[in-house]
Amino acid sequence: MTRVVSVDLGIRSYPIFIGPDLIDRLGTLTAERLVPGGLLVVTDEIVGAIYLERALKSLGEAGFRPTAVVIPSGESSKDLSQAQRLYDAALDAGLDRRGAIVALGGGVVGDLAGFMAATYLRGVPFVQVPTTLLAQVDSSVGGKVGINLPRGKNLVGAFHQPTLVVADVASLRTLAPREVSAGLAEVVKHGVIADPGLLDRLEAEVQAIRAMILPVMAEVVERNCRIKASVVREDEREEGRRAILNFGHTLGHAIEKVAGYGRFLHGEAVAVGMPAAARVASALGILKDPALVNRLEALLQAFDLPIRAAGLDPIQVLQAMEFDKKGRLRWILPVAAGEVIIREVPPEIVLEAVDLVTRS
Amino acid sequence: MTRVVSVDLGIRSYPIFIGPDLIDRLGTLTAERLVPGGLLVVTDEIVGAIYLERALKSLGEAGFRPTAVVIPSGESSKDLSQAQRLYDAALDAGLDRRGAIVALGGGVVGDLAGFMAATYLRGVPFVQVPTTLLAQVDSSVGGKVGINLPRGKNLVGAFHQPTLVVADVASLRTLAPREVSAGLAEVVKHGVIADPGLLDRLEAEVQAIRAMILPVMAEVVERNCRIKASVVREDEREEGRRAILNFGHTLGHAIEKVAGYGRFLHGEAVAVGMPAAARVASALGILKDPALVNRLEALLQAFDLPIRAAGLDPIQVLQAMEFDKKGRLRWILPVAAGEVIIREVPPEIVLEAVDLVTRS
Repeated sequence: MTRVVSVDLGIRSYPIFIGPDLIDRLGTLTAERLVPGGLLVVTDEIVGAIYLERALKSLGEAGFRPTAVVIPSGESSKDLSQAQRLYDAALDAGLDRRGAIVALGGGVVGDLAGFMAATYLRGVPFVQVPTTLLAQVDSSVGGKVGINLPRGKNLVGAFHQPTLVVADVASLRTLAPREVSAGLAEVVKHGVIADPGLLDRLEAEVQAIRAMILPVMAEVVERNCRIKASVVREDEREEGRRAILNFGHTLGHAIEKVAGYGRFLHGEAVAVGMPAAARVASALGILKDPALVNRLEALLQAFDLPIRAAGLDPIQVLQAMEFDKKGRLRWILPVAAGEVIIREVPPEIVLEAVDLVTRS
Repeated sequence: MTRVVSVDLGIRSYPIFIGPDLIDRLGTLTAERLVPGGLLVVTDEIVGAIYLERALKSLGEAGFRPTAVVIPSGESSKDLSQAQRLYDAALDAGLDRRGAIVALGGGVVGDLAGFMAATYLRGVPFVQVPTTLLAQVDSSVGGKVGINLPRGKNLVGAFHQPTLVVADVASLRTLAPREVSAGLAEVVKHGVIADPGLLDRLEAEVQAIRAMILPVMAEVVERNCRIKASVVREDEREEGRRAILNFGHTLGHAIEKVAGYGRFLHGEAVAVGMPAAARVASALGILKDPALVNRLEALLQAFDLPIRAAGLDPIQVLQAMEFDKKGRLRWILPVAAGEVIIREVPPEIVLEAVDLVTRS
């Protein structure tokens, strides 16, 4: 059964199709929304080896003329030189403004190909085919695309909504378990910020999720896309409410930075950050449901996620956090499951939480 | 007296201020629309030598903290490596999403700095301070920003509307006469496509325009901004009506290409293209006012613009034109002064016009 989530953004609205083996229907789903013509299919070496042939076959049978370009796997491909390579490939393929870009892969492929689509000829349509859990529940919803500069991640980018998203949940079964877990951290995050029922379901289905039972995964992906779509709809350009998506990220980003990118996957660092934020909320008397701290830690651990970053220097972690212009630390803090608020937190309270998290 | 044209694009609406010595009011005009903070002022060597100090002084007095970056003058600066330089300069200056980019110069500076503003941190505000006639009447209205790739112009870009435009007409007096003439070609174009009264005024004021009498220039700039703003308002993303702005450009682009970029300024090539398009309209029986051909040629020549491209190979010029997917040539053709339509033109009629234009 195919599930459909509609992301409602006026003339930029688009559907997300979710289900098993949808890669084989990529061509027909795309042909319902784009006039068949030239396409540039961007993928990476790992995903390409598994899915590229099926994607090209499906697109070709639907009347498209796809050209593939395969980038090296990994975050380092999200740069200006790979963007330049995609521009060249699009020109080689003779792509004009009626052409489109297909991003087949995880967050790196989606961000890079999406940025290229946002800027090639001042913007051409793009189709997202996310193949990781993180990309399916998070980065493929919302239109944020971008690349890294040597001095930081996502410093160059755009808001460019896809024409459609095709999330084949069968692709989740080919992921490394650690990558699945990292995606589950963002799933838990969505539950905490907006959907207490999702937390209940996750707790009830831990075994099915760990076993990657496809109907359950499809339900999880659908529910997450609905949450993120609802947040994005209210604040497409990230000027207000969309900030709540950063729950767990204030500490998470600092941990990634201090540990050195690579030791923690992004989702793992967020996993450490979420119960810590709940503890901060508790210390400030904001958290109405004190059981949430332990509940979160148990759920994250059930998904093989870390809840500590032992051995890091707490002072360094504090210093690595983003202070605002007035030197304040603003955290997204849970009030209860499904409800968060944004509050200034005194540094000594933050330090206490960091100290706990980094203790050996 | 300061003239104001409002470009009405919903939440992306912005004002264009037109008048002499407005560079000294840049700070106060900007402070009415942006909270004072960090700014990156982008200019080129030639314009910077004349205006940078005054711009920085005005911005500083209004409470901004401007940092300047000076790029080499000329089209070759509109590339990814200069964009990278601007990203670095913005990071050095600590610009966050509340910062803004100021483009002080002609079309190259506006396009490059505008593209950088569209993509830095997924988009920051930008302020246009166009200093050439072409930039004041044309490229600073409409939000088209972009850079060149080695394989072609403007292949990478975005639609990013400025927060305000400050057109100091006194800066026109520091331009080379040939550059002023090139700008006047687009002015004539605006008259032909949308405003017969403008053509009358231009004919009446040839001497005042050639002498750069500032109140007359301010009137010309204002009237042109109104025309372009009206076309852009109807078709912000260039999906339909905005195509009429390409009047004279089908042949113009082909002439630039065959002659080699640099022999003709863009406006000069457009000047050759406009009466040729009128001749094509006449040959097809579309032109209701046959006197327009001679009228156009006389006006362009009065502004020291070429109306011929003698010595080019007509077949090469024909081949350099942009054919659409179905192999057709579509031209923007005048029906009368102030009114154009888009029509398919048989190649033999085009060749006849090209032959006349290239005859030695």
